[in-house]
Amino acid sequence: MGAIRTGHSEVEASALATGASARAAIRAGRWTAHTSGLAPGHVQGNVVVLRAQDADDFLRFCQRNPKPCPLLAVSEPGEPLLPELGDDVDIRCDVPRYRVWRKGELVAEPTDIRELWQPDFVTFVIGCSFSFEQALLEAGIPLRHILAGRNVAMYRTNIPTRPAGAFHGPMVVSMRPMRAAHAIRAIQVTSRLPNVHGAPVHIGDPAEIGIADLARPDFGDPVDILPGEIPVYWACGVTPQAVVMEARPDLCITHAPGSMLITDLLNHQLANN
Amino acid sequence: MGAIRTGHSEVEASALATGASARAAIRAGRWTAHTSGLAPGHVQGNVVVLRAQDADDFLRFCQRNPKPCPLLAVSEPGEPLLPELGDDVDIRCDVPRYRVWRKGELVAEPTDIRELWQPDFVTFVIGCSFSFEQALLEAGIPLRHILAGRNVAMYRTNIPTRPAGAFHGPMVVSMRPMRAAHAIRAIQVTSRLPNVHGAPVHIGDPAEIGIADLARPDFGDPVDILPGEIPVYWACGVTPQAVVMEARPDLCITHAPGSMLITDLLNHQLANN
Repeated sequence: MGAIRTGHSEVEASALATGASARAAIRAGRWTAHTSGLAPGHVQGNVVVLRAQDADDFLRFCQRNPKPCPLLAVSEPGEPLLPELGDDVDIRCDVPRYRVWRKGELVAEPTDIRELWQPDFVTFVIGCSFSFEQALLEAGIPLRHILAGRNVAMYRTNIPTRPAGAFHGPMVVSMRPMRAAHAIRAIQVTSRLPNVHGAPVHIGDPAEIGIADLARPDFGDPVDILPGEIPVYWACGVTPQAVVMEARPDLCITHAPGSMLITDLLNHQLANN
Repeated sequence: MGAIRTGHSEVEASALATGASARAAIRAGRWTAHTSGLAPGHVQGNVVVLRAQDADDFLRFCQRNPKPCPLLAVSEPGEPLLPELGDDVDIRCDVPRYRVWRKGELVAEPTDIRELWQPDFVTFVIGCSFSFEQALLEAGIPLRHILAGRNVAMYRTNIPTRPAGAFHGPMVVSMRPMRAAHAIRAIQVTSRLPNVHGAPVHIGDPAEIGIADLARPDFGDPVDILPGEIPVYWACGVTPQAVVMEARPDLCITHAPGSMLITDLLNHQLANN
């Protein structure tokens, strides 16, 4: 078993094979990089931490917009542990790298938020496309951005979210091009996974959902669309982040892009049937 | 409750509300027309009757091609009753109008085949799109050919079927145009109904499956495709009929187009989950 190297870390891959062992390496400061590929088969989540006065509105926002904001867990106020997601999951130290935002401005990127913790902090963990991408790959559907080692292409759309309090804004989608037969299968596969964005929100013409140019994504990397392929669009976990940044709460803490919370849940446990 | 009128029949609608009552009217010769809209909610089936020497090959053909040929029932040789489909379902007299084919040529269109019955006849009843169209309508997906009172548009494709004995040929598909969000929902809804053709076989570009011009269907009526709509293609029960005609067996009996066998099964019983 070889070592996985990054700019920050060198850890034996076997030490990252489960949710608990990956979190232990992260908590000890031995892993501060992206989590893609870690703890294979385990659910990873997007993280948003808010003060209580903002958390109530944000919870209603997620409830009203389950496709971009599928909630895997919401903590008790002030409680750093997330027992629904695994044993001893501590949101203060189990994410490799955080982003701290004050009034919508990025002010720090720490690897630990114990010193920032407040007794009214509420943590939201939101399902992530890593889970459904595993399901698509297992269904024999190739994903070009993964083959190319790129981030998925993401776009702001004209699809409105349903607002709650200060939180509002358009849906962000991720797009994966695929042949028609794979698109049909991908709809079937992801329909079973509502906790990680579920079925696509659109297929085909990008202009229908307000995307001017697929070659110029708003987030992530562009990807080629070959003849005979159909663009397939899923609601994206960047939506809640964009909505929170736009609302400019006094304080918000998120994961850094790609540095997710690794849980003890298995992707296979998420399937509806 | 009003009477339903056709060129041939006038029957109180209440007398056609269930599978059993509709079959009784048909068996008594009081209904010899199309069955669309009769016995609402009940499964209707395509019918193919073959001699034993051809039936073995055709059964293998259906087994190998379940999307165009989803078998609802296969009779015992020589047995005119189909107990899997309901009480006292007699294939010799319970279809409003039959077609008799000799070596692939249409030779008669009787309303009863008791005099033609042979001790080695095997009946195949194949699922029909009426069932999944009801599910689509119940899911709030409008179907233009139904709103226009037309037959669905059907096309020969370049999608091969898997041959068995003398039976071979391309898949025939039906096409329904719909908006992208409805197409996604239609894939979800019909995926649950594999006994009535299941999920679409294609979406989007007709050239991908060898259709030269959507405005010129090979069977049925053309239908407008509006801006923002995607053509969605399902495997069609015309496929086995086309394959049987091409194989030119000595004798074959089918239902006349639109004059299906009405069963006691409910469409809701067909759903996988």
